[in-house]
Amino acid sequence: MARRFNILENATDFDGFKAFMKEPRGGGSLDVSVAANIVEDVKNRGAVAVVEYTTKFDKLDLNVSTLASSQVDLEALASKCPENVKAAIKFAAKRIEYYHAQQMPSDHRFVDDDGVDMAWRWGPIDAVGLYVPGGRASYPSSVLMNAIPAKVAGVKRMVMVAPAPEGNLNPAVAYAALTVGITEFYPIGGAQAVAALAYGAGPLLPVDKIVGPGNAFVAAAKRIVFGDVGIDTIAGPSEITVVADGKNDPAWIAADLLSQCEHDPAAQSILITSDQGFAEKVEIAVKEQLESLSTQATATTAWENHGAIVIAPMDRAAQLVDIIAPEHVEFAVDDPEELVDSVRHAGAMFVGRYGPEALGDYVTGSNHVLPTSGAARFSSGLSSLDFMKRTSIQRISVEAFAALSEAAETLAIAEGLPAHANSVSIRKN
Amino acid sequence: MARRFNILENATDFDGFKAFMKEPRGGGSLDVSVAANIVEDVKNRGAVAVVEYTTKFDKLDLNVSTLASSQVDLEALASKCPENVKAAIKFAAKRIEYYHAQQMPSDHRFVDDDGVDMAWRWGPIDAVGLYVPGGRASYPSSVLMNAIPAKVAGVKRMVMVAPAPEGNLNPAVAYAALTVGITEFYPIGGAQAVAALAYGAGPLLPVDKIVGPGNAFVAAAKRIVFGDVGIDTIAGPSEITVVADGKNDPAWIAADLLSQCEHDPAAQSILITSDQGFAEKVEIAVKEQLESLSTQATATTAWENHGAIVIAPMDRAAQLVDIIAPEHVEFAVDDPEELVDSVRHAGAMFVGRYGPEALGDYVTGSNHVLPTSGAARFSSGLSSLDFMKRTSIQRISVEAFAALSEAAETLAIAEGLPAHANSVSIRKN
Repeated sequence: MARRFNILENATDFDGFKAFMKEPRGGGSLDVSVAANIVEDVKNRGAVAVVEYTTKFDKLDLNVSTLASSQVDLEALASKCPENVKAAIKFAAKRIEYYHAQQMPSDHRFVDDDGVDMAWRWGPIDAVGLYVPGGRASYPSSVLMNAIPAKVAGVKRMVMVAPAPEGNLNPAVAYAALTVGITEFYPIGGAQAVAALAYGAGPLLPVDKIVGPGNAFVAAAKRIVFGDVGIDTIAGPSEITVVADGKNDPAWIAADLLSQCEHDPAAQSILITSDQGFAEKVEIAVKEQLESLSTQATATTAWENHGAIVIAPMDRAAQLVDIIAPEHVEFAVDDPEELVDSVRHAGAMFVGRYGPEALGDYVTGSNHVLPTSGAARFSSGLSSLDFMKRTSIQRISVEAFAALSEAAETLAIAEGLPAHANSVSIRKN
Repeated sequence: MARRFNILENATDFDGFKAFMKEPRGGGSLDVSVAANIVEDVKNRGAVAVVEYTTKFDKLDLNVSTLASSQVDLEALASKCPENVKAAIKFAAKRIEYYHAQQMPSDHRFVDDDGVDMAWRWGPIDAVGLYVPGGRASYPSSVLMNAIPAKVAGVKRMVMVAPAPEGNLNPAVAYAALTVGITEFYPIGGAQAVAALAYGAGPLLPVDKIVGPGNAFVAAAKRIVFGDVGIDTIAGPSEITVVADGKNDPAWIAADLLSQCEHDPAAQSILITSDQGFAEKVEIAVKEQLESLSTQATATTAWENHGAIVIAPMDRAAQLVDIIAPEHVEFAVDDPEELVDSVRHAGAMFVGRYGPEALGDYVTGSNHVLPTSGAARFSSGLSSLDFMKRTSIQRISVEAFAALSEAAETLAIAEGLPAHANSVSIRKN
């Protein structure tokens, strides 16, 4: 049974809901020292350490001078990907590329009122490392969503790492990697792969930024190397909030709620509706659909521990969504534009009764790497901008210098920085 | 004596230079557990804990229900700020506001080839916390550089914290805070202030993002709360690289090198020139200027431990700058545009013989919060964008659903996510 809050009939349920939103949803605390030791070891011993950890954790032998394995051939694996999956990957890749190309920023230059010639210029990061997890979370869609914005941004060197336990790697992941133009691939994973990307290991030269999801060890390693290289945000468990009126098919909405529940026992699905009868029907539909789901165990745990149904007047829906600041939100109501306008905090909005969130996981073109755990209050989904950096350029003429020097000198002296002041005053004549 | 590399005459000096750039520059390792304990304590005990730590570390008594002190009145302090400093702060604020207003992003909406209505929308973060350090690093310019982009972005609630040991706070900082329209102020600092901003403490409600420089405890606390709230990047010691030909006045270039050395014993100033005689003259000028500098001790340590002079052919200058990826770079040469075009990694460029970097610390309008320690390879200076977030919006019509559903279903099944597939297939008819 998911949690139930009836704000329509019981005003104090609003406080209950707010308290519920503050409950931690696990992921839990990892002993960072394990990851830290591995990172330090790889930093010191390079490829030799990476080979040892890969033998130990993945039962895979690597050549120490190439970090390759004869058991893992990307082209051979990709050829095993079924044709319909290949076609879907190509379709998705094309749409993702089109969307992210629209995000490319413009350079800018202007001369301001004081005659100072100011500008900035965007440029791509040189080299990016893409972490692809092993096991169940080895998703071709993640390869597309992380690599394509980098490619669009103009990143020249795209290094993919993915653990291949006993030589196993998802053929669809291999096909996606070839589709997006990965320039280097190493069948390695865990904290050792993150360290190898950050500090280099034999043939793998260091990259500038590391992106992509991973398990707790990978997340810990990314936190450790943060600063020495760029990292994306640390991804938390998935979330969906659905705002729905009573005119929806309860089974559709139940399916949408379960689509996030099946990702992770710590995932969170929340229904907001003003229709109590509809809420009951959705709850029943969730139970029915759970019965035939191969991901039943995970989805049930997530729904029972973290799911919620909030009955509330529709004019409070935007307020409730903003308290959640969900990764994904669906608006399945007659006038969704009102909600689009008034909700301020959400990673991605899906508007209309035919907009299940799963479309955005794969093919709308928008990025599925989105802020979780309320981070939509202060951060955004992955974009082309995350693979670029901006240099500010100030061209200072003698006249511009004359306009700026006095104030700069005054502030430098006020801040007790005489050498700053001197670098200005020495140019005065 | 700064380090010397003569790539012009000795090719192996290039390897020496690259090794030199990898030398750590301290900041050193802090025992994070001290900061972690304080953060945990404030999280649990709120304002009471903040008051205790402030009494203990800052010898300042706070009212537990207001977190205010009768000894620290922002308006009264601001009135003590000298008139010429007030004018310089106003001049700088106006320029910084103008520059950052130009950075405001546009929303975007388009219907793509498959008939899908895609969009994104930018919005401001609701509440931002601005940390202002105490002691020597309590700079009014930092208040401007951190708060103005937030104000321009549309942030409604701007909370400033600054330690006020025994009631002392820099009047210029108080004046800058009033100038930029800080909405709340608390005279608190250290890890306890960071925790109070992140999790709330009595009258101080939690903010969404924390920015601003601080000492090692503050940096550690920011790392700890990262994820629960947004943080800016962790700032390292300052850096300047100057590319200069022999036509410059050596004293001007020496002054520019020292302007960063005086910030921090771990600061790094590097001169790149093809003129060996000029290099000698700069080195002599540095020594002369150091003698009369009140910040002599700091600047001398930085110059001797981390400073360098690189003699190299001018056509290698861009390559050298990119290896450094400096926070600031000056181009004091006849044809600086060639360098502007070819250098890829730098936080901010200062172009022309009349462009000392110190102008950018205060008044060019560009932000002085910039990537250090080579982070310009993968990150940018602070901007209006850092105080906004982007929501992706997908409006899915029945027709768009028909165009997208097959590929989404195929990929969901291929990824072993049946509930994802079901949320699509259930809408087919």
